[in-house]
Amino acid sequence: MSVDDVELPSPATTTWSIHRYNGSEVLPAEDTIAVEAPLTILLDGEEFATLVYTPSDTIDLVTGFLASEGMIRFVDQIESLSLEEDRGFAHVKLRHLHQLSRQMVSKRFIGSCCGKSRQFYFHNDMRTAKTVTTKLSLTIPQCFHLMSELQEQSAEFRATGGLHNAALCTVSELRVTRADIGRHNALDKIYGHILRDRIPVRDKVLAFSGRVSSEVVLKTSKIGVGFLLSKSAPTDLALRLAHDLGITVVGFIRKDHLTVYTHPERIAECR
Amino acid sequence: MSVDDVELPSPATTTWSIHRYNGSEVLPAEDTIAVEAPLTILLDGEEFATLVYTPSDTIDLVTGFLASEGMIRFVDQIESLSLEEDRGFAHVKLRHLHQLSRQMVSKRFIGSCCGKSRQFYFHNDMRTAKTVTTKLSLTIPQCFHLMSELQEQSAEFRATGGLHNAALCTVSELRVTRADIGRHNALDKIYGHILRDRIPVRDKVLAFSGRVSSEVVLKTSKIGVGFLLSKSAPTDLALRLAHDLGITVVGFIRKDHLTVYTHPERIAECR
Repeated sequence: MSVDDVELPSPATTTWSIHRYNGSEVLPAEDTIAVEAPLTILLDGEEFATLVYTPSDTIDLVTGFLASEGMIRFVDQIESLSLEEDRGFAHVKLRHLHQLSRQMVSKRFIGSCCGKSRQFYFHNDMRTAKTVTTKLSLTIPQCFHLMSELQEQSAEFRATGGLHNAALCTVSELRVTRADIGRHNALDKIYGHILRDRIPVRDKVLAFSGRVSSEVVLKTSKIGVGFLLSKSAPTDLALRLAHDLGITVVGFIRKDHLTVYTHPERIAECR
Repeated sequence: MSVDDVELPSPATTTWSIHRYNGSEVLPAEDTIAVEAPLTILLDGEEFATLVYTPSDTIDLVTGFLASEGMIRFVDQIESLSLEEDRGFAHVKLRHLHQLSRQMVSKRFIGSCCGKSRQFYFHNDMRTAKTVTTKLSLTIPQCFHLMSELQEQSAEFRATGGLHNAALCTVSELRVTRADIGRHNALDKIYGHILRDRIPVRDKVLAFSGRVSSEVVLKTSKIGVGFLLSKSAPTDLALRLAHDLGITVVGFIRKDHLTVYTHPERIAECR
């Protein structure tokens, strides 16, 4: 395998200006955030897959991904691999690309990256994600209350340790709770319920047990809800999207601590 | 929307015979495990996507997934939706399927379900996943040691709370550690490194910070490693695959407790 580009070490973390509630007061601070970036793998010039990932060990990732997908078994089957990391592209040439492999591949995404903003890495997201302009406001005690309600309702999670939970809430209570082993599935189950029951969303809040990735934020904006509460951490790409799409992300909601990452103007104590 | 089939409540959990180490002795027990199942969505008779999910609220999931993918905006756009839950199929007819939508969809998977075993829900996995026949054996102290080494090396995880870690290990030490916001990416980075450096895997162990889903087990078998250690929980589909593919899964490795889920004959204290 010839590797044309030297792989530069990219930072796996970055910083973000936040508001942190420490149990008694809200203080502005800088927080360390995991970097998330899209990577489009081009195979013999054709778009093969788009992943979101932590931009480190990119050549290992591309090699391992191709092997996982059954495109290669040995590294010698890669003729060349070059990275355009700033644009988020990996160009791969294989020695013998079996037509069979090409047909049978289980593409994770067929993503078309957009000219304008790599933050929207799929055309579909450009079409379906919408900026949320809710006038709703939450208080910090409401954030704690909704997240603790979500955890209390999650009996199956406690039994198995393997389920994610998502809930559609008003500012004061949970309305619908859905569980799934897949983070996205739990949100899609909520979304489906909203559509089927024609539930208005402008006065609603999403509470979520999982990490806040770019895909979770995109789904929140598609659903049309302006608040995303989580007990876990966000990525930087998720926060950039949340900022652009008008979503207030409150994360690390644990015991009496929480962090407001985006649109703090909708949290009463941050104004 | 007409929904032909009444949705039967499927259990979100099941039981599995395990060996649990409680800090002083190994005891056989029954454990509660999250159910994981494949679901293939057929759109106007054509395979659209295959997901793995917790089999509950399936109609909500299909509706929400179609909306997330930009195929529908309102539930009225679904003409009919019927489930064959035992076979893992959802048949959907849309009123107006835009050719544009069809082309631009970001398919998560193009999965072809296999006639024989729904456990292998992709042809590619049938071809690339292989049964591991290692003669390697581990002790419980080795399991604790490797997992605690993994956590110590995960400085970035501690800083951001947002990264998954995977390590290729010998029975006594970590050899390569990779981090990523995506669970699968961390494993693909390990896989790529193994291929590029031609590292033998029969005497190796994978230590992993994330949950053990079917996809994680499939990746472990593709890599060819016979041990998967995790601090988190497995799903039932993951365990059925691990059983069939010859992978010893040790989960919930926390403090002085752990659970041996599959192939306990390779753990010295379980014999």
